[in-house]
Amino acid sequence: MIYFTLLAKDSTTAARAGRLATPHGEVQTPAFMPVGTQGSVKAMLPAELRALGAEILLANTYHLSLRPGAPLVRRAGGLHAFMGWDGPILTDSGGYQVFSLAALRRIDDEGVRFRSHLDGAEHHLTPEAAVEIQEDLGADIAMVLDECPPFPASREEVAQAVARTLRWSERCARRAGRADQALFGIVQGGVHLDLREESVAGTVRLDFPGFAIGGVSVGEPRALQRKIVAHVAPLLPADRPRYLMGVGFPEDILEAIASGIDLFDCVVPTRHGRNGSVFTREGLINIRNAIHAEDFRPFEPDCPCPACAGFTRAYVRHLVLAKEITGVRLCTIHNLHFYLSLLAGAREAIAAGRFGPFHDAFLARFGRPHAADPGAGTGEA
Amino acid sequence: MIYFTLLAKDSTTAARAGRLATPHGEVQTPAFMPVGTQGSVKAMLPAELRALGAEILLANTYHLSLRPGAPLVRRAGGLHAFMGWDGPILTDSGGYQVFSLAALRRIDDEGVRFRSHLDGAEHHLTPEAAVEIQEDLGADIAMVLDECPPFPASREEVAQAVARTLRWSERCARRAGRADQALFGIVQGGVHLDLREESVAGTVRLDFPGFAIGGVSVGEPRALQRKIVAHVAPLLPADRPRYLMGVGFPEDILEAIASGIDLFDCVVPTRHGRNGSVFTREGLINIRNAIHAEDFRPFEPDCPCPACAGFTRAYVRHLVLAKEITGVRLCTIHNLHFYLSLLAGAREAIAAGRFGPFHDAFLARFGRPHAADPGAGTGEA
Repeated sequence: MIYFTLLAKDSTTAARAGRLATPHGEVQTPAFMPVGTQGSVKAMLPAELRALGAEILLANTYHLSLRPGAPLVRRAGGLHAFMGWDGPILTDSGGYQVFSLAALRRIDDEGVRFRSHLDGAEHHLTPEAAVEIQEDLGADIAMVLDECPPFPASREEVAQAVARTLRWSERCARRAGRADQALFGIVQGGVHLDLREESVAGTVRLDFPGFAIGGVSVGEPRALQRKIVAHVAPLLPADRPRYLMGVGFPEDILEAIASGIDLFDCVVPTRHGRNGSVFTREGLINIRNAIHAEDFRPFEPDCPCPACAGFTRAYVRHLVLAKEITGVRLCTIHNLHFYLSLLAGAREAIAAGRFGPFHDAFLARFGRPHAADPGAGTGEA
Repeated sequence: MIYFTLLAKDSTTAARAGRLATPHGEVQTPAFMPVGTQGSVKAMLPAELRALGAEILLANTYHLSLRPGAPLVRRAGGLHAFMGWDGPILTDSGGYQVFSLAALRRIDDEGVRFRSHLDGAEHHLTPEAAVEIQEDLGADIAMVLDECPPFPASREEVAQAVARTLRWSERCARRAGRADQALFGIVQGGVHLDLREESVAGTVRLDFPGFAIGGVSVGEPRALQRKIVAHVAPLLPADRPRYLMGVGFPEDILEAIASGIDLFDCVVPTRHGRNGSVFTREGLINIRNAIHAEDFRPFEPDCPCPACAGFTRAYVRHLVLAKEITGVRLCTIHNLHFYLSLLAGAREAIAAGRFGPFHDAFLARFGRPHAADPGAGTGEA
């Protein structure tokens, strides 16, 4: 299964550094998981992800179960063999994408009925099926099926989702049988702190080896998201890894690390990269802008990533405007490097007990986000 | 400029092996030039091309002069610096794409007027402009502006194109002024061997450091193309490199090598790769086919390319069907490896005096093409 070891705690924040041992190797935390939606981190090969410092990937059960299908992945030897990544993998339960992508959803206590966004075929996702599919995929970490209400939702809807998620979590835990796979619980509760507390209490009682905060990055204002994370994280067992699902922008991740979160995933670096939006220490730039047309410097002069080491903003702008795949690749490589090296810097800072100053110095250059903006979404279409 | 050294001649065919020294390094011939249409070999980075054994790339003047524009490339330090490829580059004159892609072409002795396929802007490409643009791009080898009639065309049209190409070639040679750039002449003449001879005589008289056979791969049957190449190649000076423009499929390339051709370019490996068509020693396969759905072998079991070393047909099929860029990348990598290693094998066979058996053994496995089929086209949209 997994073993989580706390290695360091920051001096002035709740940030913590640790090591997560899995059947496919170790992950230094806090860690960012690049998203391999359909069994491939878009435009990247596994060896390139490894070279950028990625230690764990996320893959989406909804997408993989519709195509190529979980039984095929099992016959391929599991997701690690299928996609050629021998490091740790986490799969989500598929629930989030059912709610955000599929048509004709009908949810009851038994599970969710939906139609595939690919061919309209009807499927029934139950807690037991979510576990079975994830066992076929064979990731190191699987997630319980949860009900994730949108924002805004009525308090009653959120309370019902909390209760249903707890019932589903128990059914998932009962069905889970792979000795080499850890099943994480998920806390729901929307923006209601008392419902969050209720969800934490019930989920912790089920004694999962790791806990996720779900139901964030669903459209709520950034300030509310931060309040939820800061409230919920310290309620979770200190000796288990904490995963904040689908968050987010760099500033959101640093803030959540300060609250004691260990694991992150988000499509922002890859999706933004495909659109020519590039992260720099001075903030986001859009490489399509005319200002970069004759800028013969790299994205960032001191960046050691393969994109910055070999190519200029002018060239990448040309490639992106000309719709060349190579342009997408260079932006994606740099953005993933930006995220992964940001997390590496955070780990170092925590170990040195100076995460607070690290966080402030980053924001001073990068710019502070607006508290009212919604955070980044988790789903990749 | 360039220096061409003949290193070996085959014992039973007209195949020859040589070395082409350029300002940016040496090229072992016969050589295949991957096509970097817009300053990027689609989906590939320069270091990856180098690792696959590519020694020289081709870039398209038409595309680059429209976007980002030749003056910008000059200010970037030339095409080598702009695209991050420090090896030899050949640029075409832009004429071929004007004829195949642009709208509202009006051709007279002065040059070609056309509208950009990007924004409709009117441009006037003269022989002098073709040289100036290519000098801005700064490739190691530039091509004269030629008139390339389609197939079929009347004998009169072809004769006129031969005469005009000769006049334009002379004007190009007169204008060319870069000491670090070689200008190659182009032989036209369609399927008329006497017009081909006339074109050879006039072009050779201009004493170019290299000669190309143009006006092939424009829709003519494969058997005619081969007849032309076999007739024209031995008429060209033995001490200069011979370049067959836009050809072609593996079997066409081997046939042309047997006739004494040294340089090739074609979009087939990259374009086919993007469509999921993959070259194997047993012939082309389409990875989308259901037969590959659970085939957990690589494209070719004994292939050392990064695609075959790490990934199965089943996985690549999934990626291609899911429209993942990584699928395009894996097919492209393998196809370029297939072409580049085929040429490496040809060079070895020539050096050993056994190109004939090498050629026959390849065809016995790969399958013989139909003589009536048209060959591969040269243009990349």
